[in-house]
Amino acid sequence: MLKFVSLLLALSFCQGLQHNNIDDYVEAEPVFEASKHGSLWPLPQKVQISEVSLKLTSSSFRIVDAKASSAGPSCSLLQSAYRRYYEYMFGSAKKQWWSKNNRRSDPSDLSELQVWITSPDSECDGYPSVTSDESYELTVNQPVAVLKAPKVWGALHGLETFSQLVFEDEYGAKSINATIINDFPRFQHRGILLDSSRHFLPIKVILANLETMAMNKFNVFHWHIVDDQSFPYLSRTFPQLSEQGAYHPYTHVYTPADVKMVIEFARLRGIRVIPEFDTPGHTQSWGKGQKDLLTPCYSGSKPSGSFGPVNPILNTTYDFMAQFFTEISTVFPDGYVHLGGDEVDFTCWKSNPDIQKFMQQQHFGDDYRKLESFYIQKLLDIVTSTKKGYLIWQEVFDNGVKLKADTLIHVWKGNQEQYQNEMANVTASGYQTLLSTPWYLNRISYGQDWQGFYKADPQDFKGTDEQKKLVIGGEACLWGEYVDATNLTPRLWPRASAVAERLWSAKSVTDIGDAFNRLSLHRCRMVERGIPAEPLFSSYCPREYKGV
Amino acid sequence: MLKFVSLLLALSFCQGLQHNNIDDYVEAEPVFEASKHGSLWPLPQKVQISEVSLKLTSSSFRIVDAKASSAGPSCSLLQSAYRRYYEYMFGSAKKQWWSKNNRRSDPSDLSELQVWITSPDSECDGYPSVTSDESYELTVNQPVAVLKAPKVWGALHGLETFSQLVFEDEYGAKSINATIINDFPRFQHRGILLDSSRHFLPIKVILANLETMAMNKFNVFHWHIVDDQSFPYLSRTFPQLSEQGAYHPYTHVYTPADVKMVIEFARLRGIRVIPEFDTPGHTQSWGKGQKDLLTPCYSGSKPSGSFGPVNPILNTTYDFMAQFFTEISTVFPDGYVHLGGDEVDFTCWKSNPDIQKFMQQQHFGDDYRKLESFYIQKLLDIVTSTKKGYLIWQEVFDNGVKLKADTLIHVWKGNQEQYQNEMANVTASGYQTLLSTPWYLNRISYGQDWQGFYKADPQDFKGTDEQKKLVIGGEACLWGEYVDATNLTPRLWPRASAVAERLWSAKSVTDIGDAFNRLSLHRCRMVERGIPAEPLFSSYCPREYKGV
Repeated sequence: MLKFVSLLLALSFCQGLQHNNIDDYVEAEPVFEASKHGSLWPLPQKVQISEVSLKLTSSSFRIVDAKASSAGPSCSLLQSAYRRYYEYMFGSAKKQWWSKNNRRSDPSDLSELQVWITSPDSECDGYPSVTSDESYELTVNQPVAVLKAPKVWGALHGLETFSQLVFEDEYGAKSINATIINDFPRFQHRGILLDSSRHFLPIKVILANLETMAMNKFNVFHWHIVDDQSFPYLSRTFPQLSEQGAYHPYTHVYTPADVKMVIEFARLRGIRVIPEFDTPGHTQSWGKGQKDLLTPCYSGSKPSGSFGPVNPILNTTYDFMAQFFTEISTVFPDGYVHLGGDEVDFTCWKSNPDIQKFMQQQHFGDDYRKLESFYIQKLLDIVTSTKKGYLIWQEVFDNGVKLKADTLIHVWKGNQEQYQNEMANVTASGYQTLLSTPWYLNRISYGQDWQGFYKADPQDFKGTDEQKKLVIGGEACLWGEYVDATNLTPRLWPRASAVAERLWSAKSVTDIGDAFNRLSLHRCRMVERGIPAEPLFSSYCPREYKGV
Repeated sequence: MLKFVSLLLALSFCQGLQHNNIDDYVEAEPVFEASKHGSLWPLPQKVQISEVSLKLTSSSFRIVDAKASSAGPSCSLLQSAYRRYYEYMFGSAKKQWWSKNNRRSDPSDLSELQVWITSPDSECDGYPSVTSDESYELTVNQPVAVLKAPKVWGALHGLETFSQLVFEDEYGAKSINATIINDFPRFQHRGILLDSSRHFLPIKVILANLETMAMNKFNVFHWHIVDDQSFPYLSRTFPQLSEQGAYHPYTHVYTPADVKMVIEFARLRGIRVIPEFDTPGHTQSWGKGQKDLLTPCYSGSKPSGSFGPVNPILNTTYDFMAQFFTEISTVFPDGYVHLGGDEVDFTCWKSNPDIQKFMQQQHFGDDYRKLESFYIQKLLDIVTSTKKGYLIWQEVFDNGVKLKADTLIHVWKGNQEQYQNEMANVTASGYQTLLSTPWYLNRISYGQDWQGFYKADPQDFKGTDEQKKLVIGGEACLWGEYVDATNLTPRLWPRASAVAERLWSAKSVTDIGDAFNRLSLHRCRMVERGIPAEPLFSSYCPREYKGV
């Protein structure tokens, strides 16, 4: 393994950090050493790597369906995954195809990887879900390697792991050590939030990041698709929403075909797409194309011309929402929709005399949280009728809105103590939850901030074992104020990779030095696969990024 | 101008910064409005833009040498600049070439830009220097625009300014308003430092950033080419330095041809290339290929196996430096070399018995700064004999080394009060100086940190007018610990653009709101020219970045 590592990457042993002696920043200098787990990321649950090394030849190595597999040649999800991983492993060595007829199989070769879906239903043509089985077993031994998984989702993860075991020896030959791996995720919800409202994200950027998510075993793309700033979702039912609310109605929108492509691209990589349509706040862009949807704000006794959150006192609002979320329920196949519900500013509601009157009629007094709850409860009923479950930001829970038992509460606020208390409260109330607070990757600082992301654990709060089981995972969030196509990818990777390992690997995997060593290699692998993942520290990759 | 701006970019008017309420960060939300100076960046010294709009047609518009110009068709610097700027202005509209024969010139057209070099020596085939005349005058009026400049350097800046005045009207037609501009830089040294040692920077990345420097009127590329971590400079005299000291002797080095290409690419854009070969510290990578160059450190009475700064007590050290800097003086045509001299750690020198003995012989007592000065003075004599001037980091001045009167002192340490004191001290001693402390762009933080860079002024310190005149400019530094090809360009731009305007425009140009408005458009222009310059805040560009 040492050889492998020295070939894949060498980090420099630094004598000093020039020009960083500004007093607010002190950090131990990382020193690279080979991990006994090479470049595996996230670390599988159980790994045994032997010293026996096998060679793979690009001309003869094959990834094939095992005879007993329930997924055969008709499973295009697996067939395209085989091609993708073959390309990752041999892409830069493809020039050797001509040697095909010159060389016969050697006894020390690994000739094929057999992929064996063991469950009668491979789920090849289905969508991943929160209950999907993602486990797999991988046995690499002469002359064949076997990847066993109950479902295609585990097989996809196993292919990634297999590709991570392959390395170049000192002659450039592809090799792999005999290995046994038994793997499954610690949490079932491992997500990335991207925000396509503050800045429009071209489809190309979204696809590249789905690709990278698969390399890191993330399985949820939380698509914060619209917000105050713009409404790029082209709705078939209400096309005027993007016509008026997008930055540009043609160049800065996601058409139904775009959305379909994103969903299928994600599915082929075992990734769920959960769209977020955040209401009643964060809806300024909705108001441009949908008359009377937002609350008119008043300045004294007259409308000020500006608008606040969704108007919760009009029947037309709920008619709109019913039609809109019916469309969403058919466009997005996932079982869940994220309904937002965060940061509702009551100022505008308070200024509006019609709202004030409604408050009196409903006996809400001055408690606008009750009005918010009134809205949210009606919205949840609408979404329930579309047969979808929902995620909501923590405020909805904090404000005491009545929620269905299977609601997922998304925790995002406060400092460590506060979010841990929130996790305890939410789970004590019997709700499932997922964590994002420590993983706001839009917030950047100098140096290796991935270590902070790595150390946070969503089950670190005071609670019973039952409560801990209600934690279904977490999401790394990259809000869009300061990112677009120009800088999103290097800002997200490999910082999000730290979150990926926390959510996949065993709770005991916390050695920051070993993580640094593996992650350094993992980042060079992402670079080699064409992803501009930024460096952790002074170092080099044998094949640097080819872009600018 | 309002029309132009609304077409080039629209920033969203945000109601709230979702998910940014973490308490350590509060910022007023920027609101975009059209500047009366459109997208000009950096702002010229004198600008008068009229309301008269002229059209440019890609089929007939030409950039030509004025009849009286001292630079004609043989001046390839200008000829290639004409093509570059034509491409910038019409690149996305080139499909209209077929309309050539369909359309005749219109009286409201601008048919050509005449470039008139007024000095008998255009300096077309020379190199820019610290005393180069970079001034120009630009008059845009029907039917021709005239760009007058004493030297080609001013003409290059004028071409950039002209291209910044061109906008697309609502029908996509290229237009320009009648304008008179009289422009020259406030400071003669406006630099960017890139570090190719912590991470190797592929030539492609360096060239792209030179291109972007020209768009921002920077005129010095400070190439921090080697350091502790690696030695990518392939020396003709001492090839073993990169053979042993580079991250990889073939894939991670700059060959003589590479260096030559960088220098010529820079020259064609009016940019000087000043290499830094930092000694006696920051030289670990030198030691790998040059025996006995570094000081052996001792642990008790025995060598520890590790090495410290350059060994200042051996004659072989100075023989090496004389040969090495003779090579450097021929490879790099600029009149200056940066000699470093920062952060010398005395620990290793103190541990070495031979050094201790030398200290006694020289009557240096325990003052290792005297030993440092001994080394530096000998080095300065060597470099002086190669007919080069030099820049050194401030420590060399702080340590009282005897310096030639024309030495440039590079200030980089401390907080605002400290660096302003340093600027006062350096100039009180009669030395010229340049500032970098507030412009360490490697240090990142959340939000719009460009505003801090923008507010710093290198002449803001207590001193006489004479002292202020000794400030020749400054440099934005992007040290390489955390940047490589994957993230360098978006991290540098448009943050460095803030420094560009500070160093070019009049001292009175300090309106942060107007700067935000112009810089937002300037950043979209960089994006349109293929540079992944990151966004300032929630917004969009009509043509988003095409990469990932």
